[in-house]
Amino acid sequence: MSSTVRGSVAAGFESVRAEFAAVADAEGGDYAAQLAAYHHGERVVDLWTGPEIAEDSLIGVFSSTKGAAHLVVALLVQDGVLDLDETVHHYWPEFGAEGKQAITLRELLTHRAGVIGADAGFSPEELADDRIIAERLAGQRPYWRPGIGFGYHALVIGALTGEVVRRVTGRTIQQWHEDRVRAPYDLDFYLGLPEAHESRFLTTQPMAPTAEQQVLLDEGFTGPDSLTGIAFSRHHPDAVELEELPNLRVIRALGPASVGGVASARGLAGFYAAAISTVDGKAPLLKPDTAAAVAQVHSIGYDMVLRQHNAFGLGFEALGDKYPVLGQGVFGHSGAAGSEALADPRSGIAYGYNRRRYAFPGGPAPENVRLIEAVHTAATSIG
Amino acid sequence: MSSTVRGSVAAGFESVRAEFAAVADAEGGDYAAQLAAYHHGERVVDLWTGPEIAEDSLIGVFSSTKGAAHLVVALLVQDGVLDLDETVHHYWPEFGAEGKQAITLRELLTHRAGVIGADAGFSPEELADDRIIAERLAGQRPYWRPGIGFGYHALVIGALTGEVVRRVTGRTIQQWHEDRVRAPYDLDFYLGLPEAHESRFLTTQPMAPTAEQQVLLDEGFTGPDSLTGIAFSRHHPDAVELEELPNLRVIRALGPASVGGVASARGLAGFYAAAISTVDGKAPLLKPDTAAAVAQVHSIGYDMVLRQHNAFGLGFEALGDKYPVLGQGVFGHSGAAGSEALADPRSGIAYGYNRRRYAFPGGPAPENVRLIEAVHTAATSIG
Amino acid sequence: MSSTVRGSVAAGFESVRAEFAAVADAEGGDYAAQLAAYHHGERVVDLWTGPEIAEDSLIGVFSSTKGAAHLVVALLVQDGVLDLDETVHHYWPEFGAEGKQAITLRELLTHRAGVIGADAGFSPEELADDRIIAERLAGQRPYWRPGIGFGYHALVIGALTGEVVRRVTGRTIQQWHEDRVRAPYDLDFYLGLPEAHESRFLTTQPMAPTAEQQVLLDEGFTGPDSLTGIAFSRHHPDAVELEELPNLRVIRALGPASVGGVASARGLAGFYAAAISTVDGKAPLLKPDTAAAVAQVHSIGYDMVLRQHNAFGLGFEALGDKYPVLGQGVFGHSGAAGSEALADPRSGIAYGYNRRRYAFPGGPAPENVRLIEAVHTAATSIG
Repeated sequence: MSSTVRGSVAAGFESVRAEFAAVADAEGGDYAAQLAAYHHGERVVDLWTGPEIAEDSLIGVFSSTKGAAHLVVALLVQDGVLDLDETVHHYWPEFGAEGKQAITLRELLTHRAGVIGADAGFSPEELADDRIIAERLAGQRPYWRPGIGFGYHALVIGALTGEVVRRVTGRTIQQWHEDRVRAPYDLDFYLGLPEAHESRFLTTQPMAPTAEQQVLLDEGFTGPDSLTGIAFSRHHPDAVELEELPNLRVIRALGPASVGGVASARGLAGFYAAAISTVDGKAPLLKPDTAAAVAQVHSIGYDMVLRQHNAFGLGFEALGDKYPVLGQGVFGHSGAAGSEALADPRSGIAYGYNRRRYAFPGGPAPENVRLIEAVHTAATSIG
Repeated sequence: MSSTVRGSVAAGFESVRAEFAAVADAEGGDYAAQLAAYHHGERVVDLWTGPEIAEDSLIGVFSSTKGAAHLVVALLVQDGVLDLDETVHHYWPEFGAEGKQAITLRELLTHRAGVIGADAGFSPEELADDRIIAERLAGQRPYWRPGIGFGYHALVIGALTGEVVRRVTGRTIQQWHEDRVRAPYDLDFYLGLPEAHESRFLTTQPMAPTAEQQVLLDEGFTGPDSLTGIAFSRHHPDAVELEELPNLRVIRALGPASVGGVASARGLAGFYAAAISTVDGKAPLLKPDTAAAVAQVHSIGYDMVLRQHNAFGLGFEALGDKYPVLGQGVFGHSGAAGSEALADPRSGIAYGYNRRRYAFPGGPAPENVRLIEAVHTAATSIG
Repeated sequence: MSSTVRGSVAAGFESVRAEFAAVADAEGGDYAAQLAAYHHGERVVDLWTGPEIAEDSLIGVFSSTKGAAHLVVALLVQDGVLDLDETVHHYWPEFGAEGKQAITLRELLTHRAGVIGADAGFSPEELADDRIIAERLAGQRPYWRPGIGFGYHALVIGALTGEVVRRVTGRTIQQWHEDRVRAPYDLDFYLGLPEAHESRFLTTQPMAPTAEQQVLLDEGFTGPDSLTGIAFSRHHPDAVELEELPNLRVIRALGPASVGGVASARGLAGFYAAAISTVDGKAPLLKPDTAAAVAQVHSIGYDMVLRQHNAFGLGFEALGDKYPVLGQGVFGHSGAAGSEALADPRSGIAYGYNRRRYAFPGGPAPENVRLIEAVHTAATSIG
């Protein structure tokens, strides 16, 4: 029995619909997801499936939020307002404490600073407020010697880069995103969800691992005070499961720049389309040189926090390493519940995927591999 | 039939005794080992098991020796006598030969210098004498380009850092350890075992691998002139098995700072307790900032000598990466026969483990994982 | 039924002949290969087997070519003509574009520059001409941030280092190789095969993977625009299979310094013998210090292009990491069809191996491990 996939695809993208239906069949149960894609600025895939979910449902996108945060940074670099090779300390004097004077904005954006969390951790309410995070981290000793490697600054990178933005421009990443990106394109990708849109929000559902998957999760256990635990603030006495974060109104309301975004797949894909393509007659937000610069591989190899191989560009993930069917130059950011969102300047693809139930093992859901391949094959067949 | 575990545990640590007994049952045969732990400066675990072994037996601790050597360095840094970011060449001019001028003390302590051995190797007698090692290595070309990565300086790091100590202070690491650490606390952890204590020494017994384990050992074979071979001086014509080193009186007598230490588990645990806790009314040897600094991850990823993943702080192993039930901030050093010794400033644990028979596959014995978890669980339950 | 191995071995190397025969039996079919080795400047192994192949047959050696290219660079460094720590930009001003000003010759030689290919790719004809490659890459943005790691510059490194050689000396790597190395020793190792020798050339035969091997190849698939695809120029519209390159006369005729060389095993082994040993009364081309310098490990760990562990010295592979039966100090270069060629200054071995059919999975053929071990065992038994 085939799952019901709703929505539409442009001519030439029928195979994407079929692939999405196959994913839905394989997932079964209460699988609910959205898939959208643009090709050279035109929406060519606009699909959704599952109970309760609609085309304009909004779901917590966790770390896909970082893409919105760092498009703001990329635009400010493009405008000459920020200099990637300037020290963070220059823009934000308090950050220079505890051996962090020489860390540059580039190193911060590429997860090399070592300021992955705070010794005292953060409560969920504190994680909602980038100002609180930034203030506490200014005095934090790095968890590794800056310069020796990198690790995912999972819950805090947007607060750190956001503080640089605020100190230099007087405005937050959230304000910049709203005014310069979200509103002009009317994107359903919020860093701070207005009350008026709350009715469209769907809570994230907890992971439902199989017995075999649970064994793997247990084997990968790391203590709350490990680098991994600290990066996810699991050592704070009031810590909640990561999957609960967007289900808290305070998180959605403030939209912290690391993990607090809420979006539809349309919003995710439309966002990356706006970044690299002419959309609705508006020129691409990023010049080709800027897009190439943010996609350039900056950190690759062993990620000290995730304890596995990883690859970052400037504030974005260097996703060509994860999806080799795509190529270098691709930039974007996945989210813990399974979302993926990216731009491929070469093929002109912008891609957005959202699912409601947290996927095993956390991070980009495995089905993204086949969905991305389907979109890429269709788009490059058209040319 | 349950093994006989002797000794005592404090209230709340009964489960550690049970876990140690379970290890002894699993090991069987002539397994002989000691286990000790402190909690906030009080000894809470004091156990031993097996034939011949007593609570005060002394066993070669191989690389756990490096912990003693580098506590001395940490204390001299804390006192402002040594500067981690000064070049070794500054303190020890002869070391500047062959492209080593720019190597800092910090890089040396973090196994990045590439001076892992000498082209001519060292005889066992030469390995006993840190002065001979240092003199020969001063003119050695690094085996990798300094700055490109790290590899375990297994048999020589203590001679190199020791020569810096000697040049600056006029005294050896062994003298500093004796006067500032061992004697004041009356620790059974000797870098240079006095004749008077010889009667308590137990020789290290050779590894007794199963057939399956032997296959794995053979698969991991590296030639005597490989980086691994050179680091363990296997290319010297008079090379002996590593496990023989502490069985040579000349090694025990001089106590070379990389591998020549002899200790009981009580001595190992007491040593780390003294480092981070008030013991017998004496203030912790290390200030919290110093403890955090030596534990900060400095080298992580592929170890060129061990040909596997590894993680180092400043002269100590960054053991949070190996025991993720613990967390960041843990520092210590394992030894080739299976010993492990560490301090966890967060939980106030100091841990020491010693076994007489060389464990497969070499390095910290696998049973440390469960023993450490048992100690940690008990200690954090007490709070 | 034993394969027929032709040729001769010196006394003490009979076991190498037996090992080569065992390889031939295991390979079966139309296996055709050559094996040669020198010991302290004397040829001690001179064998070949299989249909059509003769002792002086010439085969495309793909990346083993890089050994010839970078012996030229090593000689020019030894002569004080080139400075490894000078920027490429200094020697070749146009190279400074797109953030490449600070890249040194040393970084270029150790696959750290990130200039692994061109956005537009190269046609096979363009790959034949190092001048075209160099000209196009001068303005190329690096595919990773220079300094963050390394990746194999498979098809272009010799054009880049060659342009430095040409700018400084007015002569190409090919000319230097011919005049200073190939002709004086009458080596069958050509960077640019004269028409007169064409009759001895054997085309490379395509890989013939088993079904199981094909599955592994498919699993390792990377898109043409991935870093891997770009490094092998698979994204160019006229791209051919890598194995076809030496079968094109234009490649053989010009002998591009990355992959265009043609040689016999005698030529390969003789080349490395000349590098480190007295051959025919001529002093070794490299002084011991230079040999040690080119073999020193410079890049090790995750190779961004090959997506696996790798190790490089200065323009050569640091083969002690791949053949731990050998040791540090070994330098050489394998080729995609299965060739291997190296020098081991410690044991005085020079080794060359060539096979006609492209080996699974590409790169040095697995049989090199046992053949190298056989040569090493025989040589070190003799002393």
